[in-house]
Amino acid sequence: MLGITKARGAVLIDEEGREYIDAIASWYTAMYGHCNPDITGPVANQMSQLDQVIFSGLTHEPAIALSEALMKVLPSNQEKLFFSDNGSTAVEIGIKMALQYFYNKGQKRNVMLAFEDGFHGDTFGAMSVSGLSSYNGPFEDHFIQVERIEVPTENNVDKILSGLKTRLQQENIAGFVYEPLVQGAAAMKMHKPEHLNRILELLKSHSVLTIADEVMTGFGKTGSYFASDQLSIKPDIICLSKALTAGLLPMAITSCSKEIYDAFYDDEIAKGFFHGHTYTANPLACTAALSALNLLQTEAMQNNISRITSRHQQFNETIKNHPKVSETRQIGVIFALDLKIEMSRYGTLRDRLYDHFMENGVFLRPLGKTIYILPPYVISDAQLDKVYKAVSGALDLDL
Amino acid sequence: MLGITKARGAVLIDEEGREYIDAIASWYTAMYGHCNPDITGPVANQMSQLDQVIFSGLTHEPAIALSEALMKVLPSNQEKLFFSDNGSTAVEIGIKMALQYFYNKGQKRNVMLAFEDGFHGDTFGAMSVSGLSSYNGPFEDHFIQVERIEVPTENNVDKILSGLKTRLQQENIAGFVYEPLVQGAAAMKMHKPEHLNRILELLKSHSVLTIADEVMTGFGKTGSYFASDQLSIKPDIICLSKALTAGLLPMAITSCSKEIYDAFYDDEIAKGFFHGHTYTANPLACTAALSALNLLQTEAMQNNISRITSRHQQFNETIKNHPKVSETRQIGVIFALDLKIEMSRYGTLRDRLYDHFMENGVFLRPLGKTIYILPPYVISDAQLDKVYKAVSGALDLDL
Repeated sequence: MLGITKARGAVLIDEEGREYIDAIASWYTAMYGHCNPDITGPVANQMSQLDQVIFSGLTHEPAIALSEALMKVLPSNQEKLFFSDNGSTAVEIGIKMALQYFYNKGQKRNVMLAFEDGFHGDTFGAMSVSGLSSYNGPFEDHFIQVERIEVPTENNVDKILSGLKTRLQQENIAGFVYEPLVQGAAAMKMHKPEHLNRILELLKSHSVLTIADEVMTGFGKTGSYFASDQLSIKPDIICLSKALTAGLLPMAITSCSKEIYDAFYDDEIAKGFFHGHTYTANPLACTAALSALNLLQTEAMQNNISRITSRHQQFNETIKNHPKVSETRQIGVIFALDLKIEMSRYGTLRDRLYDHFMENGVFLRPLGKTIYILPPYVISDAQLDKVYKAVSGALDLDL
Repeated sequence: MLGITKARGAVLIDEEGREYIDAIASWYTAMYGHCNPDITGPVANQMSQLDQVIFSGLTHEPAIALSEALMKVLPSNQEKLFFSDNGSTAVEIGIKMALQYFYNKGQKRNVMLAFEDGFHGDTFGAMSVSGLSSYNGPFEDHFIQVERIEVPTENNVDKILSGLKTRLQQENIAGFVYEPLVQGAAAMKMHKPEHLNRILELLKSHSVLTIADEVMTGFGKTGSYFASDQLSIKPDIICLSKALTAGLLPMAITSCSKEIYDAFYDDEIAKGFFHGHTYTANPLACTAALSALNLLQTEAMQNNISRITSRHQQFNETIKNHPKVSETRQIGVIFALDLKIEMSRYGTLRDRLYDHFMENGVFLRPLGKTIYILPPYVISDAQLDKVYKAVSGALDLDL
């Protein structure tokens, strides 16, 4: 395994001093560049003042300041924030909110709806082995039932809607979890806002709670602060992580509307929402997130996003008709290209592509036959050229 | 809610400059004291070099150095480490290892065993709503079935063992998850090593994998590096978090024996162990953990642990026969006292106790009728006296 010793801006540096452009921003986290002093400076300062304190009964300025700043950019129906540690737990909280919302209202809704090929995290069981019923009340005795719908396209959206209409006559679906506009782990599959809007509208009319998993899409990657900004139907719950803390350390946030929050606010303790990790709202992570949010809103960073978006569009024109390319797609700073080739998700072909990119000083992680670019916003034009050249070069390989 | 602005050593400081002794070390994390320069210094330095990089295909010195240092102190049968972000995910990984271990061997074992009143985290569903079957193979189609056994005492251990012997004739139990010696969230309930040993021995003889959840007990709190050090039967899997990173930022580790690891090492990709969070093995968290582990092994810190242990023992002698005390218990730096009173877990009496402690400059969080102390190792004798005085004073309240 290759040892990385340093990182600066859009570049990773290995033990031999070789440089690699981090063209996927360390899994879409380090969007403002690695070791950015605008992030690390405030965190170092915070570390000398207050490293960590229990976020229950106590609070602290970094959490308050971040919450206020985040509320200003989130869709306006979002009113409350719950902190956790990673995207998986952010989604856990969203699911638990949806299930408990109906449980508290005395309605039996225990089915979750999700897209085929969605990816929302790796966790599923810690709670089930815990035996303290005061925490598990609304959830014990049943695993989540999950039903899936196809991702909408021009061709299938009417069929999806008519299937859903029939299904919704049975009023037991609590919530719908979806990655809006782009499904990351499914190899940057994209769908159109107008199609997703129609699905969300139908679900809302049947009181199904909508949970936008913006762990990957959040914080500018699709061109807007959140992918949900490009949809007319706003989610009830939003899950955030990854770029939230600018690639410095883990944290996640699940936001929700007032209506959801109010369902947990009750004199009856059992109706409260119990979910807390030890480092919840860690002051260092909150400081990193606040610094990142400030950077995101600068004209310079917004210009970077526009610049990368338009460069991606230009690159797309040069490559989309290549005989070895079966499809390209792009939104904001996310560009993806499918090779016209049969490949398994994990296999030697994928490894050959990976090696090709590394040899050319570019860190990219193809997902099966999909090559995608999701660079830090601070990547320079020259660095982008190097990435594009490596991608074009991959098409000349004898795969 | 009270705003905390600073923390130093064993002390939290609020907006008005009032000081509170953090007598539970911010949920058992800040054991080496808040804002300890021996921890924050190396982390600040790391933050200027390499903040974050994908831990898949790439590696970095902080992760390597931490792994080597941790292997030296973990029980000798532990050989491999898996990183994640918090205690819940560390346990998720342990459970998934146990289930997949048997799945890979072609044995159908899908039941987990756990103690009554155990607490192992808050997560349960992100994976179930994910639709990428390449990740979920061994787990989909069934929620974890969990069966519970009583926590052993002198009186029930024989009954537990004979019940288990009958139960184990059906060979479908994959693993046993337990908090060794102390159950934290269950109000610091304690059990004896010899009783737990007998249970573990029986389970091992039936090839049930043993998963020690040392998230709370790890890193010196019970007087040994790990509670499992006081047991003759070593766990197959160990879950670590909380004090791992010295109260600076979230990270978790699940360690396992070579036998477990080997079951995932196969040419067949589907037998691999898939669980990765974005910030897995975050370099800052690894640096904090390595610095903490170095501190834990110093004579000064070991002397602190012995000092607190013996002071707890002395305090116990003065209070255990108090008419308002129904039981006291102690192991290492953990001291707990049950009030002879009927109280609900959450209620006004608990709030009165909490307020009493805060008014006396001590941050303690009673769990129902249990008052417990779990101070940072760096707490001074004078600070400990103040904590003991506040606890004794609580007995004079008209509850």
